[in-house]
Amino acid sequence: MIVELISTGTELLLGQIINTNVAFLAKQLNSLGFNVLFQSVVGDNRDRMGQVINTAISRADIIITSGGLGPTQGDITKEITARMLNRSLILHEPSLEKIKTYFSHRQINMPENNKRQAMIPEGALVIDNERGTAPGIICEYDNKVIINLPGPPHELEWMFSHSIAPYLVKKFGIQGVIVSKVLHVSGIGESSLEEEIKEFIVAQDNPTIALLVKKGEIQVRLTAKAAGQEQAIALISKLEERIRQRVGQYIFAVDDETMESVVGELLKKKKLSIAIAESCTGGLVSSRVTDIAGSSDYLIGSIVCYSNQIKVDEVGVPFQIITDYGAVSEETAKAMAIGIRNKFKADIGVGITGIAGPGGATDTKPVGLVYVAIDGVNDLDCVKYNFSGERTNIKYRTSQAALDIIRRYTLTIGGSNIER
Amino acid sequence: MIVELISTGTELLLGQIINTNVAFLAKQLNSLGFNVLFQSVVGDNRDRMGQVINTAISRADIIITSGGLGPTQGDITKEITARMLNRSLILHEPSLEKIKTYFSHRQINMPENNKRQAMIPEGALVIDNERGTAPGIICEYDNKVIINLPGPPHELEWMFSHSIAPYLVKKFGIQGVIVSKVLHVSGIGESSLEEEIKEFIVAQDNPTIALLVKKGEIQVRLTAKAAGQEQAIALISKLEERIRQRVGQYIFAVDDETMESVVGELLKKKKLSIAIAESCTGGLVSSRVTDIAGSSDYLIGSIVCYSNQIKVDEVGVPFQIITDYGAVSEETAKAMAIGIRNKFKADIGVGITGIAGPGGATDTKPVGLVYVAIDGVNDLDCVKYNFSGERTNIKYRTSQAALDIIRRYTLTIGGSNIER
Repeated sequence: MIVELISTGTELLLGQIINTNVAFLAKQLNSLGFNVLFQSVVGDNRDRMGQVINTAISRADIIITSGGLGPTQGDITKEITARMLNRSLILHEPSLEKIKTYFSHRQINMPENNKRQAMIPEGALVIDNERGTAPGIICEYDNKVIINLPGPPHELEWMFSHSIAPYLVKKFGIQGVIVSKVLHVSGIGESSLEEEIKEFIVAQDNPTIALLVKKGEIQVRLTAKAAGQEQAIALISKLEERIRQRVGQYIFAVDDETMESVVGELLKKKKLSIAIAESCTGGLVSSRVTDIAGSSDYLIGSIVCYSNQIKVDEVGVPFQIITDYGAVSEETAKAMAIGIRNKFKADIGVGITGIAGPGGATDTKPVGLVYVAIDGVNDLDCVKYNFSGERTNIKYRTSQAALDIIRRYTLTIGGSNIER
Repeated sequence: MIVELISTGTELLLGQIINTNVAFLAKQLNSLGFNVLFQSVVGDNRDRMGQVINTAISRADIIITSGGLGPTQGDITKEITARMLNRSLILHEPSLEKIKTYFSHRQINMPENNKRQAMIPEGALVIDNERGTAPGIICEYDNKVIINLPGPPHELEWMFSHSIAPYLVKKFGIQGVIVSKVLHVSGIGESSLEEEIKEFIVAQDNPTIALLVKKGEIQVRLTAKAAGQEQAIALISKLEERIRQRVGQYIFAVDDETMESVVGELLKKKKLSIAIAESCTGGLVSSRVTDIAGSSDYLIGSIVCYSNQIKVDEVGVPFQIITDYGAVSEETAKAMAIGIRNKFKADIGVGITGIAGPGGATDTKPVGLVYVAIDGVNDLDCVKYNFSGERTNIKYRTSQAALDIIRRYTLTIGGSNIER
């Protein structure tokens, strides 16, 4: 069954609101096994809405509209739906009663306009709306349906979950289930990643593979269809394992996990504490670490050492190192990691220095040059990066790299050896 | 000129991401006097994308697509655009050079796939993408255009503002102008704000007034139509002045300014330096301060003092104060502000402590209780807040409040009296 979602409303065309309804509906429908293949947005205009609904009728089996069920003259979705199906609008008495009751409970007279909300296309099924005054509508025709839902997300979501989903499942059955799993990848570019797993992408069928570039990471989404949940999960697991054999070292999280949540879990599990000396990231790494509840268990503290004076006085970087190698250098990053680890008595010290730009570059040190050093239980290491992009982008990518270094390091070692 | 926006990408059809590009483009286009009348979403499927582009060609003068310009096999937007206009795809050498340079700067070999990004429909104009590897494309035909832009919002937004908007204005002219100005408001709730300026909202005509609740702020958007730029600006200024008379103290920025950019400007102008001791915000305030280029001029440094030990040892909070009043208290916040100011020899010291949740609450100290103290040139102050919401929300609102305190304080005082 092919689904088309139609959102109506001039405010969407003007960009005044962001269309979250389609994302909600698409996610729900896909999880029920229905394919959403088209989404359209059109304003509160009779001709154009008619045109869009007509196009949808020609290519989809299930059409779900959102918006335009209100009491105003601009609310025309039911009218146009009826017209496109050659039906007339009739008054639905039980709905009118409900709307009247809604107003009398609030001790106000029902405005005459609200009567419009009780007008429905002939032969339509009426769907209760417990969150507002506009009932929803299901028009069946030729074993297809057009469903009109209200625009406010809390009304639409409630009605979809309570009435529309069960209706669709009952009427059209579930043709199996669809299960998705997201692998979060960092430390490898999009093209190189694709190169590595090209074989699976080219041969993809079930599960499908989709790559999505996000801030500081690439998401690999595996989506499987099967008769049941278990079979779908099994299909995904099999492909996931093969992908992990190729690029497992770059996969830092799955599904809703984030880099900071994974790092937090690892540090907690291994009872390791960290302290961070941040220069170019300006506190971003610490802020991300502390986005996780319970991070006080492992983050002892951090110093944002934006000036050289603070690097020397507070983090303990030898002044000579800055003079000899510069503030943005492997040597300084390492001294920062060692300094903050010792000072804060942490298991792991991290030092981050770089040029976030747009200023600060020299002939030998371009914007985006970043060093991240880690001083741990057993060893000291430093990685050099050349990031591109704007200041905040470079900051974010640096924070992602720093957290990934903590993650990789923590994976390799045992627990704390610091007495606390 | 009728505009249709087409977003491509299976992730949109699956509801995995929310389509913010159309809202951005629609807002911008409308402000330039172009009518966005249709928006469509289609997956990375040759037939269906062709169908959708064809429908758009039949009803719109300007078609802007987003997405599908990447290096992978699933990126087919340029191919389908070319096909629908009966053009062939050809290699654009300058784009290939740019992509090669992009990779060589990062000292990696260009994967063969990325060559796809330099293929363009014959006769198309190529639009530089300074934020990524995918160039944009403008295909002119019959005094109409199809424009292909990349999907990542920061790339699309940059390219639209820098290249596409000027191109469209030059090619299609503007019938009158629409000018918008955004006032950023913080420190007052939505209903109270609406109450204060109700008179203007009720009487709105030209300019119109729209309130939009965003993270940590409310945006008041004034939009005026007029024959020319100057008249539109004059209309806005008049209304803005009246609004400022009512709620001016809460307006911290206009248009593209942010709280951190405004704070940065003020500190720079008054030659004041700051240092921040952050507990519950975990580095977020410092990170926001350092999002601004040149912030090293005024941020000396910060300490993320997540543990009491660091508050005492590094920030200089008397242990007795924590014992007597608790780590989350006015007294501790003040001691943090004083301590960090003295230690880092800054003009202004800021101390932030609170309970970000979900754990950590006590009978008398709920989640969301926050103290922000400022120790400045002349005085010491502390403000108590009770924020609601999730952990990251509380962190953000606290950071917004802390920056606003710095802003207000800096507005009231003269320049630095610290010898540096």
